[in-house]
Amino acid sequence: MQALYWNGKQARVTERPDPEASERAVVRVSLAGVCATDLEITRGYMDYRGVLGHEFVGHVESGPEDWRGARVVAEINNACLKCDSCLRGLERHCPNRSVTGILNANGAFAERIAVPVENLHRVPDSISNEAAVFTEPLAAAFEILEQVDIQPDDYCVVFGDGRLGLLISQVLHTTGAHVTTIGKHSEKLALLEARGIETQLLSNWEASPRQGDVVVEATGSASGFARAVSATRPRGTLVLKSTVADSPPIDLAPLVINEITVVGSRCGPFAPALDALARETVSVEPLIAARYALAEGEQALAKAGETGVLKVLIDCSG
Amino acid sequence: MQALYWNGKQARVTERPDPEASERAVVRVSLAGVCATDLEITRGYMDYRGVLGHEFVGHVESGPEDWRGARVVAEINNACLKCDSCLRGLERHCPNRSVTGILNANGAFAERIAVPVENLHRVPDSISNEAAVFTEPLAAAFEILEQVDIQPDDYCVVFGDGRLGLLISQVLHTTGAHVTTIGKHSEKLALLEARGIETQLLSNWEASPRQGDVVVEATGSASGFARAVSATRPRGTLVLKSTVADSPPIDLAPLVINEITVVGSRCGPFAPALDALARETVSVEPLIAARYALAEGEQALAKAGETGVLKVLIDCSG
Repeated sequence: MQALYWNGKQARVTERPDPEASERAVVRVSLAGVCATDLEITRGYMDYRGVLGHEFVGHVESGPEDWRGARVVAEINNACLKCDSCLRGLERHCPNRSVTGILNANGAFAERIAVPVENLHRVPDSISNEAAVFTEPLAAAFEILEQVDIQPDDYCVVFGDGRLGLLISQVLHTTGAHVTTIGKHSEKLALLEARGIETQLLSNWEASPRQGDVVVEATGSASGFARAVSATRPRGTLVLKSTVADSPPIDLAPLVINEITVVGSRCGPFAPALDALARETVSVEPLIAARYALAEGEQALAKAGETGVLKVLIDCSG
Repeated sequence: MQALYWNGKQARVTERPDPEASERAVVRVSLAGVCATDLEITRGYMDYRGVLGHEFVGHVESGPEDWRGARVVAEINNACLKCDSCLRGLERHCPNRSVTGILNANGAFAERIAVPVENLHRVPDSISNEAAVFTEPLAAAFEILEQVDIQPDDYCVVFGDGRLGLLISQVLHTTGAHVTTIGKHSEKLALLEARGIETQLLSNWEASPRQGDVVVEATGSASGFARAVSATRPRGTLVLKSTVADSPPIDLAPLVINEITVVGSRCGPFAPALDALARETVSVEPLIAARYALAEGEQALAKAGETGVLKVLIDCSG
């Protein structure tokens, strides 16, 4: 089959062996999405080798009979289900896990992908492939609601108007809390304004900062942490949603003095994400910036790496 | 009156004006304790000028009639009681507050100190002055129980066998949770072992680390944060209890990947601290390393600054 393969030096569309079902389901990939993590991997992150991609929607081609033919999305942490972490319900933190397209498991920029059956989720008919392909990053946004008890009278500040920031802003908005998203791109912020979410350009916010009860750092920039700390009220909560490759100098004293709680947040639950897509309480398709065929996978990665580009999709249906 | 005054360059015992009661109570100080923060102030922290010291016990000399003669300790954050923070019960985070011996309010290394009446707490007769003087730092340790829900089957790891680490370890131990304290000084760790708390030398822990559900960083060292992060299990809680003056390079990615919650923790509630002292569920007097008269205040600071010295007391009763 054709697949976009990362060999540690180059990401190339090439012929790769079809995945074997064994104890997994093989999914025929329809549509996949490029994530910042895919780009970080091509800069050395996780020292990964294999087929890239972990955001996708497709149809089960082989596997258990009751799944065959189903339109599905799949969680990306492939857990052992036997260790202490798994037994306490923390499968996404299983120390023995593989992670689709990131760690020891081939990814979704391919004609076919093998995934553990327990990671599959059926996609309701009302959700288009173009929306369903956002399930994984949207689940990562919903993870915040699993971790932080957000009240309707909370004032939430989201830093970042990139792919993840736009999804997080909408998810927080579903709680009824007041959300202000701070970004650098008025055309991206306009996507949120159309949903009734308040936005501010970073330069304006810096001139007149207002502290939040809950602040989310989703800029992916090294300087973002100190700014986000300063934007969090005493005893407030700061959610760290983006991983930054470098280790900037950080003054931790304000966390202690203002008794701020910092919550690291990664992958999330698929069920509320699919529910939000079905009920259209969040809007994802306006985030689509470009679409490429699998054969053009290298161009898709290059496009996704351009400044200011939102979601790039790869059509794997051939 | 005599007082240990910091003028920005030198800490000197000198004659200072007696405090005026006005809307405050004037307390005749019996005994005061030297804290790491006092030493940091003499290195420039907070740019403070005034009488040093914020840990003390004494008798109310003037003020409201029902307080006169009472043996008291006093909270150190002197709030405005009018602002948004105060009205939501966050007086310890009042942006207009003064802080005894730290920010715009003369401290306790003196014959007399003026404090807001609402900050006073009566000391039960069963508690000696030598124990009562620990109320403030013990309250800071109890703050952790206000912020983190510790379960009896939790495994807690405390880094640091200094003054605060020894108090924190005992406070966590009162919850019934399993506590291991990691330190560098076997003679200090022995104080905890005598209370039934498990201890480990840092070098042994590094050879065989075990991750905690709740980890407390109380070493006050810049390298402590990364070690404490590595000691926290996925989805676990890391309590930051010590402020470090410098800004070390910090990799925040492990917080995100392992979804760790970091809780900054500062001053705490006096009531549970006094209760613990009265019921002797914590033991503080073995932490006393030395005792000086107020006239020897400069030597007291010097002694407290020596490596490995636990609590230094200043007798202000003259």
